[in-house]
Amino acid sequence: MGTVSAVDRADRVPDRSPKQDRSRATRQRLLEAAVACLAEHGWAGSTVSVVAERAGVSRGAAQHHFPTREDLFTAAVEYVAEERSTALRTLFPEGGADREAVVAALVDLYTGPLFRAALHLWVAASNEDQLRPRVTELEARVGRETHRIAVDLLGADESRPGVRETVQGLLDMARGLGLANLLTDDGGRRERVVAQWAGLLEGALD
Amino acid sequence: MGTVSAVDRADRVPDRSPKQDRSRATRQRLLEAAVACLAEHGWAGSTVSVVAERAGVSRGAAQHHFPTREDLFTAAVEYVAEERSTALRTLFPEGGADREAVVAALVDLYTGPLFRAALHLWVAASNEDQLRPRVTELEARVGRETHRIAVDLLGADESRPGVRETVQGLLDMARGLGLANLLTDDGGRRERVVAQWAGLLEGALD
Repeated sequence: MGTVSAVDRADRVPDRSPKQDRSRATRQRLLEAAVACLAEHGWAGSTVSVVAERAGVSRGAAQHHFPTREDLFTAAVEYVAEERSTALRTLFPEGGADREAVVAALVDLYTGPLFRAALHLWVAASNEDQLRPRVTELEARVGRETHRIAVDLLGADESRPGVRETVQGLLDMARGLGLANLLTDDGGRRERVVAQWAGLLEGALD
Repeated sequence: MGTVSAVDRADRVPDRSPKQDRSRATRQRLLEAAVACLAEHGWAGSTVSVVAERAGVSRGAAQHHFPTREDLFTAAVEYVAEERSTALRTLFPEGGADREAVVAALVDLYTGPLFRAALHLWVAASNEDQLRPRVTELEARVGRETHRIAVDLLGADESRPGVRETVQGLLDMARGLGLANLLTDDGGRRERVVAQWAGLLEGALD
């Protein structure tokens, strides 16, 4: 390392050194490993050491980035939630997308490993005083951002009465569908519910 | 004990002895204590011993009723779910009840200690092989019964296309609202969402 040529350097954001790049890559590996670990083993099985090993990073380096277990796992869920939000916006770059496709994509946010990880964190936070305020704050931030994306992608006009609550209810339904998918593959039923409610929503939003 | 008079005996179901009554009362105390324990301390903090102590029952007696930890907690969630179902039917004894009131009551099923306890059990089951098949089966049974009640109380005609999925989506939304209430009191927002979705439902069911 440390042999970055002048040409490479010119391509980089000026104030970021190779060392900072490496640090950023390490951080990212830790965050992704933390979400996977939480989704697979739950809160009880998720520690900084386990994640460091999974990410191929020393425990010391992991603790340099994330001093506490709470720091690591809340940052991880937030990071992956942001990644997924960005991906969702990229999926529908133009307005006026097919609403059923948008509803299906929103519901998909709650059926993968991220939702599973977030669920473990929420449930653990409900019994652990140290975790609770952090997760409450995180949930509010991620929830606001998801609501904003849903409103944009659905082309919903929130100045009209009831529209805000319609979108909120849809996201609550998406969360409930995620929960129903936790122990068994609920994909068939979910598809039919999404098709039906996308139709009802169409009427409510126009 | 054991001094039940002939008159008392005549009032009882003939084939139930006082000993059986006591056994039944003990069982019930254990089930109620188990749900409260699960809701407050989560799966990790819920053992047969902790519940026995909370119920004022010896550990031996508890194990006579429920040989394993899985037996106790799945039976407890099922018992309380049945109690709540019965209470819900009693709340709306006649058909033709106000649909918004019915929706609010259905949503209420998912905001109390029972939902909290069930959620801990589901999430634990997603990582524990011993618990998983038991909870999957339990979830299916309780889910079917809740759906049946919702259809009856809403006066929904499931022979019409889309009605079944409309009711399912409503119950998914109710579950999602329960999740949103886990860390903070979400009552104000929930009330507005329920009012709006009850309106959407009204249109879809008639």
